[in-house]
Amino acid sequence: MDEIRPIEWVDGTVRLLDQTRLPHEEVYLTLSDHHQVAAAISELRVRGAPLIGIAAAYGLALAGQNAAAADREEFLSEVRAAAHLLEATRPTAVNLSWALSRLLSAAAAAPDIADAARQALVTDALRIHREDSAAQEQISRHGAQLLSVGGAALTICNTGALATGGSGTALGVIRAAWEEGRLSRVFVCETRPLLQGARLTAWELQRLNIPHTLIVDSAAGLLLRRGGVECVIVGADRIAANGDVTNKVGTYVLAILARQHEVPFYVAAPTSTVDLATPSGDEILIEERSAEEVTSFAGVATAPEGTAALNPAFDVTPHQYVTAIITERGVLRRPYNRSLSSLSRVAAR
Amino acid sequence: MDEIRPIEWVDGTVRLLDQTRLPHEEVYLTLSDHHQVAAAISELRVRGAPLIGIAAAYGLALAGQNAAAADREEFLSEVRAAAHLLEATRPTAVNLSWALSRLLSAAAAAPDIADAARQALVTDALRIHREDSAAQEQISRHGAQLLSVGGAALTICNTGALATGGSGTALGVIRAAWEEGRLSRVFVCETRPLLQGARLTAWELQRLNIPHTLIVDSAAGLLLRRGGVECVIVGADRIAANGDVTNKVGTYVLAILARQHEVPFYVAAPTSTVDLATPSGDEILIEERSAEEVTSFAGVATAPEGTAALNPAFDVTPHQYVTAIITERGVLRRPYNRSLSSLSRVAAR
Repeated sequence: MDEIRPIEWVDGTVRLLDQTRLPHEEVYLTLSDHHQVAAAISELRVRGAPLIGIAAAYGLALAGQNAAAADREEFLSEVRAAAHLLEATRPTAVNLSWALSRLLSAAAAAPDIADAARQALVTDALRIHREDSAAQEQISRHGAQLLSVGGAALTICNTGALATGGSGTALGVIRAAWEEGRLSRVFVCETRPLLQGARLTAWELQRLNIPHTLIVDSAAGLLLRRGGVECVIVGADRIAANGDVTNKVGTYVLAILARQHEVPFYVAAPTSTVDLATPSGDEILIEERSAEEVTSFAGVATAPEGTAALNPAFDVTPHQYVTAIITERGVLRRPYNRSLSSLSRVAAR
Repeated sequence: MDEIRPIEWVDGTVRLLDQTRLPHEEVYLTLSDHHQVAAAISELRVRGAPLIGIAAAYGLALAGQNAAAADREEFLSEVRAAAHLLEATRPTAVNLSWALSRLLSAAAAAPDIADAARQALVTDALRIHREDSAAQEQISRHGAQLLSVGGAALTICNTGALATGGSGTALGVIRAAWEEGRLSRVFVCETRPLLQGARLTAWELQRLNIPHTLIVDSAAGLLLRRGGVECVIVGADRIAANGDVTNKVGTYVLAILARQHEVPFYVAAPTSTVDLATPSGDEILIEERSAEEVTSFAGVATAPEGTAALNPAFDVTPHQYVTAIITERGVLRRPYNRSLSSLSRVAAR
């Protein structure tokens, strides 16, 4: 099977798989400036916390490449404006601002020539992509050890190759567990309103030949009550210093159900998703998206015209419901304020 | 505002609002035999536990009207066969078998003339419809008293005029509470996969001018965690003797969330939904519908071709999560095995 490459830096352009067209069509876009990248992030053509960090990094590399400025200060000011635009696309995932800050520092540290700073942006964007991929290998390896043989896992949204620069976070663990013969089946929440579970995760699992069953999100209660699900495993868009986890709306519901049914609830995420500057989930801004995502589907209205809808893209799962956080640096346990702050690499950034 | 009439007996035919066409079109079907009624129930053109009881009753009245048999025994045998067909359309809601049993008894008790038995079927079907409507007035009245002034309610699926022979069960309570100035807003779970909340409840609430906000089902966790929801109120498809409640899939999730957030969880249903012959929810057959309802929407595939899906139409909420059951005979409290069995009219049927 060909590896899925949702994003690539190709000859000074960004080649992007348009995820809004999946599972029906595999359409690749070639983006040549940061405005196009920002639009692709806003429109969810590229999504997933780690992957939007990478996309933003490549976007900033494009901005550097296209910058008209001759001198260093003017160049950095142009690039900072581009970073500001890219960061404003989506407020919740911390990987976006993390990647942009890192690139801005790299550019600022480059010798006093715009060309060197330009090159630093490309080099560091490529490095972030590579590191993300490597982190997922470690996450998958650590996470797979948590699953015993023969159980089924339940997941939500998409946390696989399509959401990341590598094999995935929660879905990376699922993939590794499957390869090690530990997993019997994956139950996939369809993940309304944008159906990332149905459209993207089912597509990836089909390509990987991993047995999977789709459910509507609200069937998770019945499924866990019936038994046979060994664990719930999800990704994260931002993890606060106390271990509170922001992830796709519905994640909190799964955490409550997992606790109710005495099933472990695992979060798989690279340390770049950890935001030690945010004390708890209460301080994390939850993106509210348009009502239309709820009131229509595939261009067809699902509710009467004029129906109001609340459409939070994420929710917060308090740390006490999280059994473990699987990072590339190992499996973290409670108390998370201690285990998370001990991640020296995170603390150092 | 015109009252919604989802079903009517008109000059020996059944006039039925095709609910699969809502909210886009109000299309009425005229059905003249019980096969058409059975198909309409299977295809969810008519749905809602109380309303499918009424529809089945009218279907049986049509079967009696169309029966070719001249003598009584032959007539009753034809009608029993029709009842069997109607009952097999949907296995979970008890109102269906309850209404059919009642009509068969009425026909069997009629004098020894097929005509009298024929007439008994029509008369009793009309009476079931009238009684259901009257029951909902009482349910609404009793239920509204449970809501304090100014709160918001959260509901799932459709339990209004479209689901019943009158103003509704849970939505009837909501309507009465609104009219009494007790309610500020209704949050409506869209109710995947068939979107009865988005398509039908939002449509009814819009007609009633009751402020409402649609959410995807999995946003209920965030909504309850944020606060401001005073109660969760739902209908029921079957209530077991111990108070376990079978209702639209996702109801159990709402019950767990309500308990978690210390919000009361109310079930509104006529006593015809109570099945004292079934000891607990574990013995209730949960209808599994086709995978296609999950893997496609409005004719558009939402998942890759060949994706397996589990599609239970209902789930069971154990009685310990039910704060109260609102019936036409009053508000029942725990222990339900006692309060339910004391419903003499139920016991008598």
